[in-house]
Amino acid sequence: MDTTPQVTKIDLLIEARWIIPIEPAGIALENHAIAIDAGRIVAILQQSEAHRRFSPQTIERRPHHVLIPGLVNLHTHAAMTLLRGMADDQPLMEWLQHHIWPAEARHVSPQFVRDGTRIACAEMLLGGITCFNDMYFFPKAAAEAAVEAGMRAAIGLIVIDAPTAYATDVDDYLDKGMAIRDTLRDQPGINFCLAPHAPYTVSDRAFGKVLTLAEQCELPIHLHLHETTQELRDSERQFGVRPLERLHRLGLLGPALIATHAVHLEPGEIAHLARHGCSIAHCPSSNLKLASGIAPITALLAQGANVGLGTDGAASNNRLDLFAEMRLAALLAKAESGQADAVGAHQALHMATLGGARALGLDEEIGSLRPGKAADLCAIDLQDLRLSPCYDPASHVVYVASREQVSDVWVAGIQRIKHRKLTADNEIELISLASLWQNQIRPRDA
Amino acid sequence: MDTTPQVTKIDLLIEARWIIPIEPAGIALENHAIAIDAGRIVAILQQSEAHRRFSPQTIERRPHHVLIPGLVNLHTHAAMTLLRGMADDQPLMEWLQHHIWPAEARHVSPQFVRDGTRIACAEMLLGGITCFNDMYFFPKAAAEAAVEAGMRAAIGLIVIDAPTAYATDVDDYLDKGMAIRDTLRDQPGINFCLAPHAPYTVSDRAFGKVLTLAEQCELPIHLHLHETTQELRDSERQFGVRPLERLHRLGLLGPALIATHAVHLEPGEIAHLARHGCSIAHCPSSNLKLASGIAPITALLAQGANVGLGTDGAASNNRLDLFAEMRLAALLAKAESGQADAVGAHQALHMATLGGARALGLDEEIGSLRPGKAADLCAIDLQDLRLSPCYDPASHVVYVASREQVSDVWVAGIQRIKHRKLTADNEIELISLASLWQNQIRPRDA
Repeated sequence: MDTTPQVTKIDLLIEARWIIPIEPAGIALENHAIAIDAGRIVAILQQSEAHRRFSPQTIERRPHHVLIPGLVNLHTHAAMTLLRGMADDQPLMEWLQHHIWPAEARHVSPQFVRDGTRIACAEMLLGGITCFNDMYFFPKAAAEAAVEAGMRAAIGLIVIDAPTAYATDVDDYLDKGMAIRDTLRDQPGINFCLAPHAPYTVSDRAFGKVLTLAEQCELPIHLHLHETTQELRDSERQFGVRPLERLHRLGLLGPALIATHAVHLEPGEIAHLARHGCSIAHCPSSNLKLASGIAPITALLAQGANVGLGTDGAASNNRLDLFAEMRLAALLAKAESGQADAVGAHQALHMATLGGARALGLDEEIGSLRPGKAADLCAIDLQDLRLSPCYDPASHVVYVASREQVSDVWVAGIQRIKHRKLTADNEIELISLASLWQNQIRPRDA
Repeated sequence: MDTTPQVTKIDLLIEARWIIPIEPAGIALENHAIAIDAGRIVAILQQSEAHRRFSPQTIERRPHHVLIPGLVNLHTHAAMTLLRGMADDQPLMEWLQHHIWPAEARHVSPQFVRDGTRIACAEMLLGGITCFNDMYFFPKAAAEAAVEAGMRAAIGLIVIDAPTAYATDVDDYLDKGMAIRDTLRDQPGINFCLAPHAPYTVSDRAFGKVLTLAEQCELPIHLHLHETTQELRDSERQFGVRPLERLHRLGLLGPALIATHAVHLEPGEIAHLARHGCSIAHCPSSNLKLASGIAPITALLAQGANVGLGTDGAASNNRLDLFAEMRLAALLAKAESGQADAVGAHQALHMATLGGARALGLDEEIGSLRPGKAADLCAIDLQDLRLSPCYDPASHVVYVASREQVSDVWVAGIQRIKHRKLTADNEIELISLASLWQNQIRPRDA
């Protein structure tokens, strides 16, 4: 009888001090390894067992590190990195109407979007983000930047009831969006959402067209919702109902809906969102910074709603940093609900990974470390005085680590961050590119 | 007539892309330099002018950096770094009674405090903090660790109406405290506060003794105040008034008082604190994490109260990071007050520097960059993709930078952080020390 174990050739074996797989929930595996082949996870097992079963082409040892799934940024306007910190400490409408929209009207072009998204992708990868859900003009340029950076993305096919440099009217937005999808639909890692901007910028007629297309093409619908009290008041005046009720009447509530912000919700609305299987893109930094408020995440989770985390754009955050959002989401939920056990570390990690993946309909592909899923991974180096001692690696990832402790990032098994540096792009070049745009947008000494 | 300019020999000239002096408020000087001699700031002037006027022994060029005053951590329990993340996601009283106090009862000793504070000092220096206001047992050990690290500190002479390993009763706490002050009062950089723990752990009689000593010795009084609603209820039941009113009746309200937390305040109480010239140690992360609430900082500032920032201990934060606290304080104030222009970037920087210095009675010595003040400085490297582009350096320090971008720190003109590393201590050794303590306190695999 042959008792020689069968040894399988694989591309890559990563050993780590801890692995937090997200599924099953709430655990950290010690001294395990992840076997990866052809960009996918083959197995997660004890290191000794891994060496018996696999013959890897490459072994990466991370003896002080915790491995988590690559983070999913569920709401951003990536290209707006070029406007990072251009106008702070302003209310949403003033900030939009007097600063952001005028700057966009003057400067936004395919080149702006390509360059801004390229910088955003680099920033996100450096911080362990492997997938982002984008909403911006010229989405083809954003998609191309994501492909170039080797990131996974859900590209928002934006619709707004106003002419911009990108498109003239609702039909033009939708035609351009669907053409982009037709061109890029076979591009690995590139996915799409329909992205009607917000109830206050999109008409009923436009929402109707979006819904039809979303159902035909099986696309998520990504929008801003209930961000400010002004939005609620305006909707009541114009439509006689709050925006959520308006969307409900238009038939938009369902598992395809990604409601970004959802700050102002009555108890019935929380139940409504949960019952319809909607997802929430929680953007705590942006909601605080624009004085919008604090979303009732504890209640949403208690009702079973799916919640992911977003950074929003760099103009209102001012960082594309899901470590900051995880920490803030966990801290804020406690004060907002009055419960110190609300949104623990594992729950925050779930929101930043599987919660985002599920919202995008990508939870069979990414968001947790399970055999068969794509090898989208983030390694965090806990050998750092600032993280010592370490009683619990999940707590440290959420409450103590900064994105600066991210040491390695893989997307579909390809290493995109190594020794805390981009593998495919030059940071100094990207800094110069940002500086060039800045001098065009608002010269430093003006 | 001799027109040769007079050239003054100095120890050190630091040139920086930007200098934010805090005084005058709201400005960032471009391409200026700081002249330093014998540990003090001699002048702040344009770089070209600096080279005409000064002949420095050393020139440090920081062409992509912003220089700010060293940060002042207005409330911490430094030694508790050894308990970092030991018990998360618990309400304050459960956390104290079932986790922190039992661990302290078993482990706290002079060696625990010395080692824990040593690790805390290293963490704080790495994050640009040059002065901390401590409250813990065995304060002599904390003072010695601060001296060894080359940090400035206000050492809390703790008083608590309960026996601990450190002291048996109120008189013993006070005798020990005053003896420590007598021993170390001439030690440069070491200052003292009287630190009655909190209204719920200190009797009227003990507060009376504290007040007498504070007045005799001209020491600030540092305590926890109005942290939770339970504290308020208990005080009303036991004393018939809220804690602030009790302190007022005992005569404790005045410019010497540092009220830590101050989360739950009625409008009259806010005015009361401001009118008496009290200082607030605002600890936003800790207040969120323990579900205590959000302090009304915007209203306190509007009334003219002095506000500084604290990290609290690493058991309830879990980081000693004033960059995180500045950002959180600026963001939270906007949502708490509903005003997006509340606590702007310069205001947050003021709280983390001059606000803290003023609370400690050290505002003639530190907290801003002014000729005559001590050269306590922090340089932040903004040449980083994650901080690009940069329209406003103050905004970037508060909203975008992490403590990991701190490149250099000087305390009284002596460089304590260089190339992002400790100059006087070994990080790997300190990590091992933390690990040794962790294995004693709660072995990893237990």
